[in-house]
Amino acid sequence: MSLNFKILNTSAAGGRRAELSLAHRTVQTPVFMPVGTQGTVKAVPQDVLESLGAEIILGNTYHLYLRPGHDLIQRLGGLHKFISWPRAMLTDSGGFQVFSLSALRKVTEDGVEFRSHLDGSKHFFTPEHSMDVQIALGADIAMAFDECTEYPAERKRAEESLRLTLAWARRSLDYFRAHQNQVVWASELGRKQNLFGIVQGGMYTDLRKESAKRLVEMDFDGYAIGGLSVGEPRHLTVEMIAEVLPLLPADKPRYVMGVGFPEEIEAYAKMGVDMMDCVIPTRAARHGLLFTSEGRMNIKNLQYAEDQNPIDPNCSCMVCQRYTRAYLRHLMKTSEPLGGMLNSVHNLAFYMATMERVRGQLSSGIGN
Amino acid sequence: MSLNFKILNTSAAGGRRAELSLAHRTVQTPVFMPVGTQGTVKAVPQDVLESLGAEIILGNTYHLYLRPGHDLIQRLGGLHKFISWPRAMLTDSGGFQVFSLSALRKVTEDGVEFRSHLDGSKHFFTPEHSMDVQIALGADIAMAFDECTEYPAERKRAEESLRLTLAWARRSLDYFRAHQNQVVWASELGRKQNLFGIVQGGMYTDLRKESAKRLVEMDFDGYAIGGLSVGEPRHLTVEMIAEVLPLLPADKPRYVMGVGFPEEIEAYAKMGVDMMDCVIPTRAARHGLLFTSEGRMNIKNLQYAEDQNPIDPNCSCMVCQRYTRAYLRHLMKTSEPLGGMLNSVHNLAFYMATMERVRGQLSSGIGN
Repeated sequence: MSLNFKILNTSAAGGRRAELSLAHRTVQTPVFMPVGTQGTVKAVPQDVLESLGAEIILGNTYHLYLRPGHDLIQRLGGLHKFISWPRAMLTDSGGFQVFSLSALRKVTEDGVEFRSHLDGSKHFFTPEHSMDVQIALGADIAMAFDECTEYPAERKRAEESLRLTLAWARRSLDYFRAHQNQVVWASELGRKQNLFGIVQGGMYTDLRKESAKRLVEMDFDGYAIGGLSVGEPRHLTVEMIAEVLPLLPADKPRYVMGVGFPEEIEAYAKMGVDMMDCVIPTRAARHGLLFTSEGRMNIKNLQYAEDQNPIDPNCSCMVCQRYTRAYLRHLMKTSEPLGGMLNSVHNLAFYMATMERVRGQLSSGIGN
Repeated sequence: MSLNFKILNTSAAGGRRAELSLAHRTVQTPVFMPVGTQGTVKAVPQDVLESLGAEIILGNTYHLYLRPGHDLIQRLGGLHKFISWPRAMLTDSGGFQVFSLSALRKVTEDGVEFRSHLDGSKHFFTPEHSMDVQIALGADIAMAFDECTEYPAERKRAEESLRLTLAWARRSLDYFRAHQNQVVWASELGRKQNLFGIVQGGMYTDLRKESAKRLVEMDFDGYAIGGLSVGEPRHLTVEMIAEVLPLLPADKPRYVMGVGFPEEIEAYAKMGVDMMDCVIPTRAARHGLLFTSEGRMNIKNLQYAEDQNPIDPNCSCMVCQRYTRAYLRHLMKTSEPLGGMLNSVHNLAFYMATMERVRGQLSSGIGN
């Protein structure tokens, strides 16, 4: 049995309050998914993630394929067991990192040859290979192998990229359906691993619509919108999401990949996006950029040197309950590892609280 | 009222099971004190330290004087409040770091001029200034300003260094007694800040004895043995401790500074040392060196790549309850901050458990 997506409430603007039942967790949506690139949400222990209310986290296929390797993770019982995370997980296809991190890429119809950003070693990813790796990792949700179209892209280039992504989506789905039962926990848990297709098409609305239509015909377990937050102005991000959402099946989860700032995840959730992920909360935290109910704050600024307030007086997270801005600034100025850790916990708590507030509004019909 | 030191049991070998009552905590001794160099035990949050059973931690005066500055910490209510640590604390005198970290030191009878290891700025520390800084920080225990004699040192050099340390001890104590009530929490809590003297004398037993005798005449609140673990062979460390302990008052706490490995802290506690501190558990952890009931382990070794056991099957710490050696190795190999964090938590837990076992043995009279 694949995922179950139960819509509890729908707003006039299209926002959906729903429950997404996966093998390892029934996830309350709209949901923000912290990114655990190399099998760890940077600087945040798993028990803290649990206490923050994280119900589903990401793993990056490209990184885990290179280190420690998907074969090793499969031998040790899959990614959940390897990192000791009992709740839901999602893996990306590896495509995005192949295109953004690796060197000397050579894209052919068959797949993409690339060199590792770590040691220059040569690798070849195809849709079939991405499925093999993701089945070995065994996340609750796997993603079709796609090419993330860069921004800006000429129409000709976006068309060709979309054609390739659609061909790869078909091959991903066929291979996945034939092999998905190999996932290490498939025999133990009630629900199977799922595969989502990814809408591409650059910033061309007709290509985006074409992409969505063709993917829906293939019948994936859910649908993602990829290739956003790649440098385009925000109004284009919003436009692409708004154009694509109505073409996706209402009864399946919709995932916008790699967004965004707090105000973005709130706005997209209210438009009808069910799932989002982003490295912003943790990456910004490690650089001292904190999100609060009163806006953004660079905790390294001198103005906080003797500030005994918590990061956000309206925040109930464990960091705001215990530590002052002055202390957090000191930790950042002295490059202490505790600084990035505590900042990450606060920022994730702020993202989690944002989504909880949105879910409350969608449940009650307020704020639509 | 200064500290209260209540001996519950004494072993034939001289080990003491006691309770050390300080302003912020009654500490069970023998105790190991994690080192919080810059106002944070590296990579370990305060709530985790509490759950590990840490009752007293260190702060380094040299580091905190440079950043964020003792004046700032005093304005914010003292070190306990600044770092949000409600239990006991001890600050060193700054002397050790001045001699080990700073550049262009110039020692005179009055004090030591040095340049900051951070920006080359010029500073001057005297016994009086060290007391001012430590009173501003407001730890439960402050340390007399001393010169840590290097190893090896010619007898002439050790004699001169000891003479200076004794003169500085006198000045430290006089200044401290005259000003200790300025500590920020002195009016709120029942017990005052305390000052310990530091025995020096290199590896010359007669100088060590002379140092102890002269310090005891001055009547400090407790006594430390410094200048050990500076490169000497272990039998010399043991010899110096064994020679000095009988000369220190039985009814006051005895502290050996900057030691050691787990087998050392166990041995010294059983000889009659009440307090120890060391960066080894956290520093080793960040390099992948772990302490277990079956010996030491470099978690980065290939042999642990697929090892699903916890670090130490006999350890009940939160890391051993949740994570495998394979995962911890992966975190170290990928330089993930979580690796150093989890390793530090385990190593500290191992040190805490070691001391708890020793306390149990001293209480019951077993294993003496």
